[in-house]
Amino acid sequence: MEFGIAFKGEIDPKRTVAITRQVEAAGFDYVWFFDSHILWADPYPKIALCMEHTERLRYGPLVTNPRVRDWSVAASLFATLSKISGGRFDIAVGRGDSSMRVMGKKPGTIAYTTEFCEAIRTMVAGQSYQYDECPAPVFMDWVGGHELPVWIAAYGPKALAMAGEVGDGLVVQLADPGLCSWFSEQAIAAGKAAGREMKDYRVLSCAPVWIGDIETGVQQTKWFPALVGNHVADIVEKYGKDAANVPDSLTDYIEARRAGGAGGDAYNYRQHGDMESDNTYYVTPEITESFGILGPVEKHVEKIKELEAAGVTQFTIYLTNGSEEKIVAEYGEHVIPHFN
Amino acid sequence: MEFGIAFKGEIDPKRTVAITRQVEAAGFDYVWFFDSHILWADPYPKIALCMEHTERLRYGPLVTNPRVRDWSVAASLFATLSKISGGRFDIAVGRGDSSMRVMGKKPGTIAYTTEFCEAIRTMVAGQSYQYDECPAPVFMDWVGGHELPVWIAAYGPKALAMAGEVGDGLVVQLADPGLCSWFSEQAIAAGKAAGREMKDYRVLSCAPVWIGDIETGVQQTKWFPALVGNHVADIVEKYGKDAANVPDSLTDYIEARRAGGAGGDAYNYRQHGDMESDNTYYVTPEITESFGILGPVEKHVEKIKELEAAGVTQFTIYLTNGSEEKIVAEYGEHVIPHFN
Amino acid sequence: MEFGIAFKGEIDPKRTVAITRQVEAAGFDYVWFFDSHILWADPYPKIALCMEHTERLRYGPLVTNPRVRDWSVAASLFATLSKISGGRFDIAVGRGDSSMRVMGKKPGTIAYTTEFCEAIRTMVAGQSYQYDECPAPVFMDWVGGHELPVWIAAYGPKALAMAGEVGDGLVVQLADPGLCSWFSEQAIAAGKAAGREMKDYRVLSCAPVWIGDIETGVQQTKWFPALVGNHVADIVEKYGKDAANVPDSLTDYIEARRAGGAGGDAYNYRQHGDMESDNTYYVTPEITESFGILGPVEKHVEKIKELEAAGVTQFTIYLTNGSEEKIVAEYGEHVIPHFN
Amino acid sequence: MEFGIAFKGEIDPKRTVAITRQVEAAGFDYVWFFDSHILWADPYPKIALCMEHTERLRYGPLVTNPRVRDWSVAASLFATLSKISGGRFDIAVGRGDSSMRVMGKKPGTIAYTTEFCEAIRTMVAGQSYQYDECPAPVFMDWVGGHELPVWIAAYGPKALAMAGEVGDGLVVQLADPGLCSWFSEQAIAAGKAAGREMKDYRVLSCAPVWIGDIETGVQQTKWFPALVGNHVADIVEKYGKDAANVPDSLTDYIEARRAGGAGGDAYNYRQHGDMESDNTYYVTPEITESFGILGPVEKHVEKIKELEAAGVTQFTIYLTNGSEEKIVAEYGEHVIPHFN
Repeated sequence: MEFGIAFKGEIDPKRTVAITRQVEAAGFDYVWFFDSHILWADPYPKIALCMEHTERLRYGPLVTNPRVRDWSVAASLFATLSKISGGRFDIAVGRGDSSMRVMGKKPGTIAYTTEFCEAIRTMVAGQSYQYDECPAPVFMDWVGGHELPVWIAAYGPKALAMAGEVGDGLVVQLADPGLCSWFSEQAIAAGKAAGREMKDYRVLSCAPVWIGDIETGVQQTKWFPALVGNHVADIVEKYGKDAANVPDSLTDYIEARRAGGAGGDAYNYRQHGDMESDNTYYVTPEITESFGILGPVEKHVEKIKELEAAGVTQFTIYLTNGSEEKIVAEYGEHVIPHFN
Repeated sequence: MEFGIAFKGEIDPKRTVAITRQVEAAGFDYVWFFDSHILWADPYPKIALCMEHTERLRYGPLVTNPRVRDWSVAASLFATLSKISGGRFDIAVGRGDSSMRVMGKKPGTIAYTTEFCEAIRTMVAGQSYQYDECPAPVFMDWVGGHELPVWIAAYGPKALAMAGEVGDGLVVQLADPGLCSWFSEQAIAAGKAAGREMKDYRVLSCAPVWIGDIETGVQQTKWFPALVGNHVADIVEKYGKDAANVPDSLTDYIEARRAGGAGGDAYNYRQHGDMESDNTYYVTPEITESFGILGPVEKHVEKIKELEAAGVTQFTIYLTNGSEEKIVAEYGEHVIPHFN
Repeated sequence: MEFGIAFKGEIDPKRTVAITRQVEAAGFDYVWFFDSHILWADPYPKIALCMEHTERLRYGPLVTNPRVRDWSVAASLFATLSKISGGRFDIAVGRGDSSMRVMGKKPGTIAYTTEFCEAIRTMVAGQSYQYDECPAPVFMDWVGGHELPVWIAAYGPKALAMAGEVGDGLVVQLADPGLCSWFSEQAIAAGKAAGREMKDYRVLSCAPVWIGDIETGVQQTKWFPALVGNHVADIVEKYGKDAANVPDSLTDYIEARRAGGAGGDAYNYRQHGDMESDNTYYVTPEITESFGILGPVEKHVEKIKELEAAGVTQFTIYLTNGSEEKIVAEYGEHVIPHFN
Repeated sequence: MEFGIAFKGEIDPKRTVAITRQVEAAGFDYVWFFDSHILWADPYPKIALCMEHTERLRYGPLVTNPRVRDWSVAASLFATLSKISGGRFDIAVGRGDSSMRVMGKKPGTIAYTTEFCEAIRTMVAGQSYQYDECPAPVFMDWVGGHELPVWIAAYGPKALAMAGEVGDGLVVQLADPGLCSWFSEQAIAAGKAAGREMKDYRVLSCAPVWIGDIETGVQQTKWFPALVGNHVADIVEKYGKDAANVPDSLTDYIEARRAGGAGGDAYNYRQHGDMESDNTYYVTPEITESFGILGPVEKHVEKIKELEAAGVTQFTIYLTNGSEEKIVAEYGEHVIPHFN
């Protein structure tokens, strides 16, 4: 089992570096940064800083998307980060929901995102790639030929299939073992159908956690099912609530979402991931507990064991509630030692 | 007089950091990085690293351009770098010749570049800006309201006018005092005509230097007039060789360029800034000496005094010939102390 | 109120640096290191490292002593640390109990310790000082003239008097408000009697803390009254149990110590400060609670307010129980904000 | 051939770190610091800093001595530096001439220095050692069992013998190939006579260098034969000028020393290693050229090849003339690549 944390962008840079050093000392494997350039600071300068302060940790955006940077610019940036860190750089890719929609733009299509993954991998490996807007293949002769692991974030059937066909791993944004199992099976089946050997396929479950009483934990983390629900609503809209390829446990809870809150049922991206989000009006304590990990430290060990049994290979904490160092310390001391 | 250095991207990251620390200790003011994402590594992760290792130096791309990043992505990146360094970040902007042409694309127009500068400055200052592809104004609520100095690189009459109208400073890519004086007068006149108070306007002259015998110096730096000549050829093509608003001393020397070298008269961008460049066939020792600073250390002091008299406020060394630390040490010991 | 932490030597250097960065970000003022060169690693290289990673924190040994280094060597070391940190270095001085006794040697006398303080202060200030073994005054011409704050650790009447006469501050190794008040009054009275203006005199109370249930806290910190008791036993031996100038609340609890534990009543210095120390056989939960701070976070705020009222100007946590980052995080989030 | 530099203490800490990073990037192997605590800042905090900024370089004092620190304090310090750097720490040991004499004290005897080496090695290896002032063996249970290479600085016959019998290597403070050969033969012969296998014995030649014209070089480095001469005068006094076991080429040049300069023939330790030293009155250009390396870069390669042929395994530059970065750059670019 690998362990990771995911930062949002708003923590002070010096504190970010201090936490990252603590994270390495505590035995974690990955540090991820949200990449949504309007909502939060650009993560890549901070990734460069944190790389410099650590020796073993791997880094990456969780998630970047194909629509904000010219692909050659993205490839140049990613190859540089891989180079300066001795290869400790991955990317996780999504369609760009928050990044694009907050500007009133559309996220990338599945096909476009798929091609982006291939283009980036090829150029970062030091090979030529020609993408539509370019009159000739692009290649960067200073690139050292890095292998760039590409993780794909997905909820819906088509995105899951693409994650299995194209990705080195799947990102599941919730920590419900049943759903993680279902999601990873979809991706793995698609990968096999495409002729890939899937035995090293990786599955990352990410969610916020709370060590302490459940009630406070629910209060601290209910922003998370709201964030997930926004993606789920898209899926329901596209595939219908009762589609065979979407599990009821994922879609049922957003029924109450249609009723709308103070701001109607539109998702407010400006509060994406905020604890005090207006988007949470329909979120129940049960679903919050099921999507994250709340309770005493033993509960965390137990649930992560369940996730492991469900095929999850990395558990990443969304580190967003003000007690960052405390959570890292507890995991380093009481959770991570139960695994490996 | 301010002093700066400009790195190309190919120096090892650890050596880059070591040189930057030496540069700060030696009394320099600025460290610039080439930003041409296909030709060299992405400079921004390295800028973040170097910021962390220094306390006083200012940083920036020399030059970035308006055509490679969605403007909101560029603004997010620049605001982040300003934030993590306590405001020690500027940008220098060009139309994107090398960055675009090496991909077979066109650089930005003057008008497009002008709007880019305004958009970036506005968003980095924490205010809303709506640019054409966006259905609504973009604003980033995490931005601290940074003031971002914007320098403009220019050779031709229109670009010089725009540099005076829009820029906080002008970048002149050569160290000939007469030409520097002529260029800065054009920009300042345009700024005054546009009603700006120009007394704090800044002029940066950048060029390679060589401390030692002239002959070796010419050998080491003749790539530079070839790089400049490529821009000058554009100007001649556009305005004609005898246009009143272009000085003969700038255009005469590219006459021999038309004859063509091994590769014809097309500029080979893959050798942009390389010492062994094929692009240099028409470059004379005289022009190389006039565009850079070559000779014993006293000669450097003398020529920089002339540049100062010509209105130059910053001299930046293109640090590209393998003797980086030696040049920085000589300037720190024997040149900078002559300028308060 | 200032806040500090005190490290023992055995934490991994990388984790030490990470914690120190966290400590600065959390709003603490001081980082102290135990200086007992046989029991733990030499603190000064780690102090140098941590200085480099922080900008505001002050550092020092807690406590150093006059018997292990030639005084000119000590002065050279302290002046160097002051110089490389821009003056962020203090010392706290004791007689050297653990440092000397673990080698079978005697700690310094009060008079010797007093002269040490004067010698160090003088040499670090860049002035000449002649001490007995030197045929001529020693001075170091490279010293910048640093002002070195000197804190004195004391329990007994004579040491307290000397702390008031010579020190910039007093170190009290326990967090009982009544005793802290009594100790600081003794020192301040002695200072006034010696004609010093004592209004800026500083009083540092240091003790381990535990955030959580009292029972676990007692278990985790009962090594501390054993460590204190060892010093107190010296005082009782010297002044008698009922001496007017030693408070009963300090001496009563060591009555049970005479009975002896597994190892007799001799203090085992090899377990100095260890959680699993054999030295704790006579320590009651009440005294453990009274000497440290145990309980929920509100209890910590309350007791530190009492210490403040008792004249304490800095509270320093003995950070020794494995939950270092968690304690720092809790104090940064929930305790320090209550003290401007 | 290994390459090293040796710093004196007076360079600004930030510049020291920058140079050390440059030194690692340039391919050097060792960074040594003068250890003479009255004359210069204490080197150990700076060693800790520089270790943190590099990955491969080894560090040590050149030279420390047995008379300034309680041996257990020295062992604790050295074990700590070895521990925090992953074992990248050596010591070079002398009798303490400058360190002791500047205070009017006597340096250690050969026998005392010999025992110091054994004591330190034993305690740093994590074993018990009892030395005269201690009633019981000293051991430090936190020590990881480091192997500490011990180099011995020697000129005279007895010191050379001791270097061969006890040391892992010999330090010769001059770069004359003939003398280096003679010195190393003495040490190696003594080692063999004591039954040691000497095939991995190391010989370090250290001296200032100057790249450029000889005349300026002599001016810049004539302090060095004066520093050496002071040691040689001791030898002549002890063994007589014509003793069979001291080469004439070493002793002849100090004949003129007896005449005395402005300050008589007493060596002024306050100017130890200073370029403007009064101690140089009797030093000829020939001896200066012979003891250091002066001239164009080819001359350096040639002379270091001669040193290699004479049995020298490391050449260390006394980096003291203001052109530190330039010398490091020249060696990295033009000298070191000729070896390995």
